[in-house]
Amino acid sequence: MHCIPYIPRLLAFLPCIGSTLSLCALLPKCLVFLYICNPIMLPISNRGSLMPESPIRKLAPLAEAAKQKGLTVYHLNIGQPDIATPQAMIDAVKENISPIIEYSHSAGNESYRHKLVSYYAKHAINIQHSDIIVTTGASEAILFSFLGCLDVGDEVIIPEPFYANYHAFAIVAGIKVIPVSSAITDGFSLPALAEIEAKITDRTKAILICNPNNPTGYLYSEQELKQLENLVIKYNLYLFADEAYREFCYGGKHYSALQFEHASQHVVLVDSISKRYSACGLRLGAIVTKNKLVINTIMKFAQARLSPPYYAQVAAEAAIDLPDDYFTVTKTEYNKRRDILVKRLNGMKDVFCPNPGGSFYAMAKLPIDNCDTFCTWLLNDFSYNNTTIMLAPGTGFYETKGMGLQEVRFAYVLNTESINAAMDCLEEALKVYPGNVNNI
Amino acid sequence: MHCIPYIPRLLAFLPCIGSTLSLCALLPKCLVFLYICNPIMLPISNRGSLMPESPIRKLAPLAEAAKQKGLTVYHLNIGQPDIATPQAMIDAVKENISPIIEYSHSAGNESYRHKLVSYYAKHAINIQHSDIIVTTGASEAILFSFLGCLDVGDEVIIPEPFYANYHAFAIVAGIKVIPVSSAITDGFSLPALAEIEAKITDRTKAILICNPNNPTGYLYSEQELKQLENLVIKYNLYLFADEAYREFCYGGKHYSALQFEHASQHVVLVDSISKRYSACGLRLGAIVTKNKLVINTIMKFAQARLSPPYYAQVAAEAAIDLPDDYFTVTKTEYNKRRDILVKRLNGMKDVFCPNPGGSFYAMAKLPIDNCDTFCTWLLNDFSYNNTTIMLAPGTGFYETKGMGLQEVRFAYVLNTESINAAMDCLEEALKVYPGNVNNI
Repeated sequence: MHCIPYIPRLLAFLPCIGSTLSLCALLPKCLVFLYICNPIMLPISNRGSLMPESPIRKLAPLAEAAKQKGLTVYHLNIGQPDIATPQAMIDAVKENISPIIEYSHSAGNESYRHKLVSYYAKHAINIQHSDIIVTTGASEAILFSFLGCLDVGDEVIIPEPFYANYHAFAIVAGIKVIPVSSAITDGFSLPALAEIEAKITDRTKAILICNPNNPTGYLYSEQELKQLENLVIKYNLYLFADEAYREFCYGGKHYSALQFEHASQHVVLVDSISKRYSACGLRLGAIVTKNKLVINTIMKFAQARLSPPYYAQVAAEAAIDLPDDYFTVTKTEYNKRRDILVKRLNGMKDVFCPNPGGSFYAMAKLPIDNCDTFCTWLLNDFSYNNTTIMLAPGTGFYETKGMGLQEVRFAYVLNTESINAAMDCLEEALKVYPGNVNNI
Repeated sequence: MHCIPYIPRLLAFLPCIGSTLSLCALLPKCLVFLYICNPIMLPISNRGSLMPESPIRKLAPLAEAAKQKGLTVYHLNIGQPDIATPQAMIDAVKENISPIIEYSHSAGNESYRHKLVSYYAKHAINIQHSDIIVTTGASEAILFSFLGCLDVGDEVIIPEPFYANYHAFAIVAGIKVIPVSSAITDGFSLPALAEIEAKITDRTKAILICNPNNPTGYLYSEQELKQLENLVIKYNLYLFADEAYREFCYGGKHYSALQFEHASQHVVLVDSISKRYSACGLRLGAIVTKNKLVINTIMKFAQARLSPPYYAQVAAEAAIDLPDDYFTVTKTEYNKRRDILVKRLNGMKDVFCPNPGGSFYAMAKLPIDNCDTFCTWLLNDFSYNNTTIMLAPGTGFYETKGMGLQEVRFAYVLNTESINAAMDCLEEALKVYPGNVNNI
């Protein structure tokens, strides 16, 4: 009786046993054999199959192997800063005296949300604590925004290259990502409005931007933001604005989508403390919107998962009281790194890297045949002075197949000495890489 | 130009202005007026509308109001234990010396997963660390199980009453919950297999059980589990087994679905440290399965959200080294509370409460017209000795409309003195409640 679902597989299996044996004699034995050796064929979901493997993390085993060969691997591949988490945050956790680590409010501790209001006010973002839902990282904020505002089959337009996990959360939410390509030759600025408008259909419900951008480092101007403001009003769309790198702008000034005069009801801000305070492991972010219907809807998703993590909120609340020069120091450091990285890259033969205005990423075009092959080759087959580098292949940030083949993303999360050493390594690598398109 | 989307609303608005005015003269002014006063009508998603408000938390403002009137409110409504989180867990967090709170492995720290293997071995569950993905609470474990194994429109069968958030995560995943009713007269034991089989369609992909059960406290027997083992083999289904209350069994022995001899590949275990160590706020759980295809698939969802929370893993790893008598003490306390609660309830006129074998919940049938009305009335209109009680209405745990109307859930998360006082209060309440069906 238990073997009923396996009969089709059994029948498929039979021909290889040979036709001379009696089917009747064989059948019960085969059933038992199949059941014991390989009892199930449970299918996973289609969306599970569709989910991409992390484009960055799939190189991780190769980096491990390189280290075991004795190489130093410069990790410029992932946005895990090397800056220490502020001591005040760690101390706040140590000083916690609550004897029970209880659920917090599903929207996050009220005390923390009140403090966040003062944080945002410093950035000319005027909101109330009830406009905030504290989330488990920006990850959850993105997912909740998709779930609350879009239905299965709806579309969100995102300038590409974009943060690869937007695609993953779109699969979770069953929505379609519609890319609009930004060009490295324009420094990855906002694509022309006509190009964005051409992508709008009756299923389009939102536009998503990351500002300053991961992976390009591009800092959108106030003018570009205002173009988007007009667009979301004209077509009645949401604007999801991921501003996790707000503090890290070099030269230009950050203009938040929540500063919109007319379209603030359209804006759902996605935020994170991961990069701001070098506290990625805490897993704390936020959704901020002045749209009450959206807040109330997303609150129901937040209630289902009960609450954001306790200690993270304790640490994050302490962070709001950090002196203003905390960011000055961190930003100065990132700025120095960016300057070295970009200068070194543009000093290499046939390499082009636009100067990014923010975050701690840069995308460069290299004279290579295929970035996935190149990044793999760096870890598997190359070394220079007993070092090599790990980079994020550009293709992982594009939705459009075939794009980004010659691009790689650099996260400048290492000190200047390491960045210089990594650049020495890259320069040498490009000289000897068999797939250098100018050497072939 | 910006007002195009609002014209339909404008037209709906016009009749109330009166037909004597010239439409042509009015139109531009109305557009401006509408745009300024109420510029948008952005729709939220259908699934956002479908998401239920938390059946427990919607009574929270009423409890707040009762407290402000000066009443003591006995909270028997929510599974937030009053037991202190083990000091060893809190100390481990305090002793953390890492200067950067980094992302962990997406599947959870390897050291923690190795320790979990020894934890499960003590419960006769033999797994490897690679069979585990550490999650942000059981909440995420449930969602990932749904996402990885089922597609939009697929069905999961769940005995009702069940934990209300299963329904919420089913909406997130776009799947259908098919309830099979268990009866309070049978102590909420597993419904007859024929009843479960009758619900199986070609869209059925899984059965979900919570053992010991929230909200009923029912502890499934080894025999019932083995019936389910046969069923999931026969119909090639997943069995999602939520065993978050594993430690809290009184009398009977817990039999885990991961102890199955034949169907272990069908089992996806959902786990949590929230109740085990009274550490709900940490937000840490796990998925455990011997099915490699499922682990690999769910790993992709785990990678998208980067990692589970850092401090929670530090605390949870320390918890594995707690002395075995930690659970003896906690369990003895819960056992004492259960005995008092159940005895007191069954001593009340027309009240029936089956004796639950595990967890820290009990469902009772009360002589009331409507549990939602009753729970509201307790907070709004009743007091006894300056106290009242907050309970979870039974209806919130049933998928089938109209069921559970006379039932309420008790979480025995208060000390015995408070439970006795709460029972005094309830006994009095039932005497005077206008909707007592035997008094009407």
